[in-house]
Amino acid sequence: MAANKLKVFLSELLEHDNFMLLTHKRPDGDTIGSAVALCRALRAVGKTAFVKENPEITRRLLPYVQTLTAPDSFKEDITIAVDLPSYGQLPPAFFPYREKIDFLIDHHISNAVNANISSYINTKAAATGEIIFDMTELMDVKFDEKLAAALYISIATDTGCFLYSNTTSKTHSIAAKLLETGIDFPNINREFFEKRSRARIELERLIYNGMRFYLDGKVASIYISIKMRLRTGVDEDDIDDLSTLPRRVEGVVAGISAYEQKDGSIKMSVRTTEEVDASEVCAALGGGGHPRAAGCGMNGSARIAILRVVDEISKQIK
Amino acid sequence: MAANKLKVFLSELLEHDNFMLLTHKRPDGDTIGSAVALCRALRAVGKTAFVKENPEITRRLLPYVQTLTAPDSFKEDITIAVDLPSYGQLPPAFFPYREKIDFLIDHHISNAVNANISSYINTKAAATGEIIFDMTELMDVKFDEKLAAALYISIATDTGCFLYSNTTSKTHSIAAKLLETGIDFPNINREFFEKRSRARIELERLIYNGMRFYLDGKVASIYISIKMRLRTGVDEDDIDDLSTLPRRVEGVVAGISAYEQKDGSIKMSVRTTEEVDASEVCAALGGGGHPRAAGCGMNGSARIAILRVVDEISKQIK
Repeated sequence: MAANKLKVFLSELLEHDNFMLLTHKRPDGDTIGSAVALCRALRAVGKTAFVKENPEITRRLLPYVQTLTAPDSFKEDITIAVDLPSYGQLPPAFFPYREKIDFLIDHHISNAVNANISSYINTKAAATGEIIFDMTELMDVKFDEKLAAALYISIATDTGCFLYSNTTSKTHSIAAKLLETGIDFPNINREFFEKRSRARIELERLIYNGMRFYLDGKVASIYISIKMRLRTGVDEDDIDDLSTLPRRVEGVVAGISAYEQKDGSIKMSVRTTEEVDASEVCAALGGGGHPRAAGCGMNGSARIAILRVVDEISKQIK
Repeated sequence: MAANKLKVFLSELLEHDNFMLLTHKRPDGDTIGSAVALCRALRAVGKTAFVKENPEITRRLLPYVQTLTAPDSFKEDITIAVDLPSYGQLPPAFFPYREKIDFLIDHHISNAVNANISSYINTKAAATGEIIFDMTELMDVKFDEKLAAALYISIATDTGCFLYSNTTSKTHSIAAKLLETGIDFPNINREFFEKRSRARIELERLIYNGMRFYLDGKVASIYISIKMRLRTGVDEDDIDDLSTLPRRVEGVVAGISAYEQKDGSIKMSVRTTEEVDASEVCAALGGGGHPRAAGCGMNGSARIAILRVVDEISKQIK
């Protein structure tokens, strides 16, 4: 059924020839990996495809997309957005594309993007990369190492390297096929999951010093100020998985991470175990996301912002 | 070929009826998971099987083996050692079994155990649990959740949850089949890979304070004294993956962890990237292990012990 729907979606897509691929704001491994893999797959079946340069891309992901970046001269007929849950998640540089998203491929539960031609959303996919994997198989594209590495990054990053509860039997089956191509996954794992800069180690120490507990230790919060980032010298790649830290503490069912933004607002990230629905918590505060990982933006002091999130969480903890 | 060898091994094994399963010293997820899974599989085909109580088992693994522990009255005909690389790795309580190991199933490269009847060693297996998985399939045993959970623990713990370079396509294929049984892998992952006690967080802070670098930052070392353990109140489960910390620092190709022992000796653990062969390093110092993870015991001060390991590593770094 789902496979059939994907076939229909794919045949609509393949009626066209010139594609621009769009990724989301603060691009992660899933949006970049999915765009890179789809771009390579489309090229493999004779299409012209490029990935739109995302100004917010970080050093770790850059090498994978570099050779596929659209030159200024390229004029696409069709745009495809991958892993984009809402218009608010478009990077500012992509705002001109707001009304011009022709196809959408995503796995977020509360997707609010209306594609002009067609959307394929599978919320059971651990990563958008799983959907791209299926499309690539349907297109009968031979997996080379580069395509496989992009899909591996997509799937591994969105599952915390097969750690999180969104991992499924299918996720592992796909990984098994990707590893068969001989990709250098140990190096990818080291780069994305193991490696820690000395700046990151120092930041972690500061974060743990400021960790707070609520509701009998069932909720933990951390706060990452701009000053802490500057003082330690961390970059975006250093801090991309910090949000998982408070939830990892023994006894914690919901972890809150508050990131001070340059404009003075606070970006809140909520990570939970099965006991708490993070997307519900964040939706109540104007945000959204997945059941185990969600986020929202807030104003005012971090301390008050955290307490408001704790209050929403407390409604679910009896 | 290998499958055929395993079939022969298995048929020899199944000629017998009363089994005692032996695990190794400081038991990890692989030795316990393998013993539990094999015990359940043997029982499923009508054999009598128990797991010998390992006095060193930790709280995290105990629930999986508890109901299978051999009562004092049980008298086995045959013993099977799983994941046992050498006689030195037998827990002291198992010394009476030294000459009585009838079958051996393992994946360590330098295995030095001579089984009385037969040995099956597959060094390509990421975990001994992968071999048990193959045996279970050959025995045509239906995977129930308990058996699948034991194999998942075995495979996930020995690969750092599919992170380390010993992970293969086959590892993921097996995981895909295990997840199909509906095991509560998110809870297992949380318990074994995510959860950190407050004691552990405090210990990590002390460890990072004492981290030292050598050979232009290519080697890092940490030292865990008995005093640090007592002061923070960590238990064995809290510290079982500390050895990976130094290697995780950016630029480090070999990480050394020195654990002070009660008898005053130092247990050294070496974790490396592809650039350094850890088993060679440790073999030169009277220990052994895998290419990316090995260990040895040393005497004297930790500082000198670490420098001796650094010296061995330097021979491989040009």
